[in-house]
Amino acid sequence: MRWARFEADGKASYGIIENDEIEAVSGDPFDGYERTGVRTSLASVRLLCPVMPRTLYAAGLNYAAHVTALANSKGETPKLPPAADIGYRGSNALIAHNDQIVIPADAGERIQYEAELVVVIGRKAKGLTEADALSCVLGYTIGNDISERDWQASDRTLWRAKSCDTFMPMGPWIETDVDLDAAVTTVRVNGRETLSFPTNSMIFGVAAYISRMSKYMTLYPGDVIWMGTEGTSENLKAGDVVEVDISGIGTLSNPLVRASA
Amino acid sequence: MRWARFEADGKASYGIIENDEIEAVSGDPFDGYERTGVRTSLASVRLLCPVMPRTLYAAGLNYAAHVTALANSKGETPKLPPAADIGYRGSNALIAHNDQIVIPADAGERIQYEAELVVVIGRKAKGLTEADALSCVLGYTIGNDISERDWQASDRTLWRAKSCDTFMPMGPWIETDVDLDAAVTTVRVNGRETLSFPTNSMIFGVAAYISRMSKYMTLYPGDVIWMGTEGTSENLKAGDVVEVDISGIGTLSNPLVRASA
Repeated sequence: MRWARFEADGKASYGIIENDEIEAVSGDPFDGYERTGVRTSLASVRLLCPVMPRTLYAAGLNYAAHVTALANSKGETPKLPPAADIGYRGSNALIAHNDQIVIPADAGERIQYEAELVVVIGRKAKGLTEADALSCVLGYTIGNDISERDWQASDRTLWRAKSCDTFMPMGPWIETDVDLDAAVTTVRVNGRETLSFPTNSMIFGVAAYISRMSKYMTLYPGDVIWMGTEGTSENLKAGDVVEVDISGIGTLSNPLVRASA
Repeated sequence: MRWARFEADGKASYGIIENDEIEAVSGDPFDGYERTGVRTSLASVRLLCPVMPRTLYAAGLNYAAHVTALANSKGETPKLPPAADIGYRGSNALIAHNDQIVIPADAGERIQYEAELVVVIGRKAKGLTEADALSCVLGYTIGNDISERDWQASDRTLWRAKSCDTFMPMGPWIETDVDLDAAVTTVRVNGRETLSFPTNSMIFGVAAYISRMSKYMTLYPGDVIWMGTEGTSENLKAGDVVEVDISGIGTLSNPLVRASA
């Protein structure tokens, strides 16, 4: 099943996507819903960020080649994370499919994408074993963890390197049935493929993260977990369009602009 | 003015505290409210966390002696933060005044308090100068950033060192009129004073943080910024009661228990 959040009559509504249409529901996929029978052409609606999370979790370092490249760029010895330690981002940074990524006027030139699988939590959960971990998952969407690498190197925390307004495009929708082992993540810049990797080749997988997190923290409906990216990125600039595609989910596309000083 | 959030007829309501009574309002201090005239004895209501933030920001290192002590404990040279770089915590960890802090069964013995001024954002804000920064502040409350120091040293991120369920007591209420320069933060463990420092002796003050944050990030009503702590803490254990008092605001008190294995 494919869940989208979209704008209808000036307010946000959830809907179910079937073929090229979206059927509005009353309620939402977390607390319960009823179909309305009202169908609209998917092409004619404005998609919103598919969920506004209570907490925006991010794995950060979770693919081997990305960890190695990041360490090498700083002249450090690569060190794979020994455990599934989760991090945080600011929800202020979330934007939807097709929304503009706005590069701050004083940002440097090293604006880069990070193509990520995003787990959407569907129900309250605590103390899940790895075997049971996926039982709290509603589905999956796509995230692009836009990063300003100079600030990532200079600042004490990742706040503006990762969480400037518009730096966390997420969408286009939530897909509940995904074969993660078969999925491939692909990035395209202006239509040209720049990165491709098996989505599930993580150092710590979705079940491992959820089980470890839920040992200490209650997960809530609508929480999202960004699972990290593989590889490296070239620099993005104003005028570019960056697309992140995960097979079985969809394509998240966002144009870039730069704020004037 | 003193705003509290409390439980009434099984649901959360905002109210205004005057003398020893709380007057319920319809609405809330962020989007507008009307007084109801219904007054209850403050002692008879259950106070809730005064706000459930959209984003839980935390300054972390923001007082000189705390930075020095933390570095010394790790055998590192103390380095004061060069800029007001903000961090994040998980809102799952929030509890109210008088709620129990639950130490996880597998946590070590170095469970410590961090007594913090908490800024509550009252209106949407972006691009504020330092001179205008306080215009977006609704008021101030108190936070206790409970920390498990072994995990803080061992883990790649601060997730379970700082954001285990119940590790972020916040309250008891929001005070809108506080003279920060006159305020003193005091910690008591089982009634015995263990720490006292001038609340506003921060490396970067409230206006400096808000101005720098809002250059890159939109602040939203209900966002909170935990401003860091001074000094060091002794270890807390099950059975202790820890109180954080900030003069002009109030006292946040929480008992500790340890989960069984």
